[in-house]
Amino acid sequence: MSSLPDAIEALIEELTRLPGIGRKTAQRLAFHLLRNREEAPRRLAQVLETVAREVTFCPRCSNLAEGGRLCKICDDPRRSETVICVVETPTDVLAIERTGVFDGSYHVLGGSINPLEGVGPENLSIEALLNRIREGDVEELILANNATLDGDTTALYLSHLVQSERVKVTRLARGIPMGGDLEYSDEHTISRAIKARTEFGD
Amino acid sequence: MSSLPDAIEALIEELTRLPGIGRKTAQRLAFHLLRNREEAPRRLAQVLETVAREVTFCPRCSNLAEGGRLCKICDDPRRSETVICVVETPTDVLAIERTGVFDGSYHVLGGSINPLEGVGPENLSIEALLNRIREGDVEELILANNATLDGDTTALYLSHLVQSERVKVTRLARGIPMGGDLEYSDEHTISRAIKARTEFGD
Repeated sequence: MSSLPDAIEALIEELTRLPGIGRKTAQRLAFHLLRNREEAPRRLAQVLETVAREVTFCPRCSNLAEGGRLCKICDDPRRSETVICVVETPTDVLAIERTGVFDGSYHVLGGSINPLEGVGPENLSIEALLNRIREGDVEELILANNATLDGDTTALYLSHLVQSERVKVTRLARGIPMGGDLEYSDEHTISRAIKARTEFGD
Repeated sequence: MSSLPDAIEALIEELTRLPGIGRKTAQRLAFHLLRNREEAPRRLAQVLETVAREVTFCPRCSNLAEGGRLCKICDDPRRSETVICVVETPTDVLAIERTGVFDGSYHVLGGSINPLEGVGPENLSIEALLNRIREGDVEELILANNATLDGDTTALYLSHLVQSERVKVTRLARGIPMGGDLEYSDEHTISRAIKARTEFGD
């Protein structure tokens, strides 16, 4: 039996549910929160409450948003609505935003098609995407699905689905990653990079 | 500017205040909490509230306790009150409890004497310790302060302070740690281990 007060045991238990947090780290975090217990736990509890209460999905693109409103990107008049980048998750949006090279808008599918896990097209926000294409002025759809089997399946499905719409469909380039070492690249990546080779200087 | 909702930014910000949690880990944790936001954030918020509200110091030994009551160890009738192990922090109590070899009680000082950081004897729970010795049936005081300069200073101070009391004062053995490699032990540890060498077989 632990000599710790039950409240602290409960906190440690709850912290170990977080990804990558083992018992030792959880205990260290719990004691940190305890040492600063005048402020730290209450402040953290507050932001957690706010997140649980306030965070919603953007009604247009399904990205993370607040209070049922449009997400910050859909709400930004400087972002073009004519190019939509389709991604699987909100973290993919963050990854692309970090590059700073994309000024269009997004559409977050909420995952990828995976029959084995029971995820079909009807579980993704595909209907909403089609509506955006039909009702809006969309010129290009960038399918930025993950370079995985599921991602490719989903991208293929989407490309068929919008065939009849007047929209250009593109995808992210595949190849050797920047700084990537040929020696450590897998054969699929290398063979695709050979097939998709470009003019030197491009 | 981040494309994330403010509520999530606030959560990430708050998580990066935790020790050993950088921006990347904080973001991963925040998204985990978001993915499970039906339950996880609220449950974590709840245990944090409970900790902030319920956790107190044991009125006898200053270990962590709950609701102003005695800590679990002081409250355990099987724990001897005649041997008191003096430690700096509640985590030290945990470390010793893990060994399972000590069945006495503890006294948590709340730190060590460090004039540079403005910590004097009056900032530690020394008065309460003296009262326990004077009023109780204490036979032995184990000074388990850390093997640091501050810890040694504090132990020395305490040993002088209780000189006039009828109590045996001991300290933890110092030497090469179990599994420790001589080659990688520092010279202080080795020289102390040589001076404090024991009969082979002890």
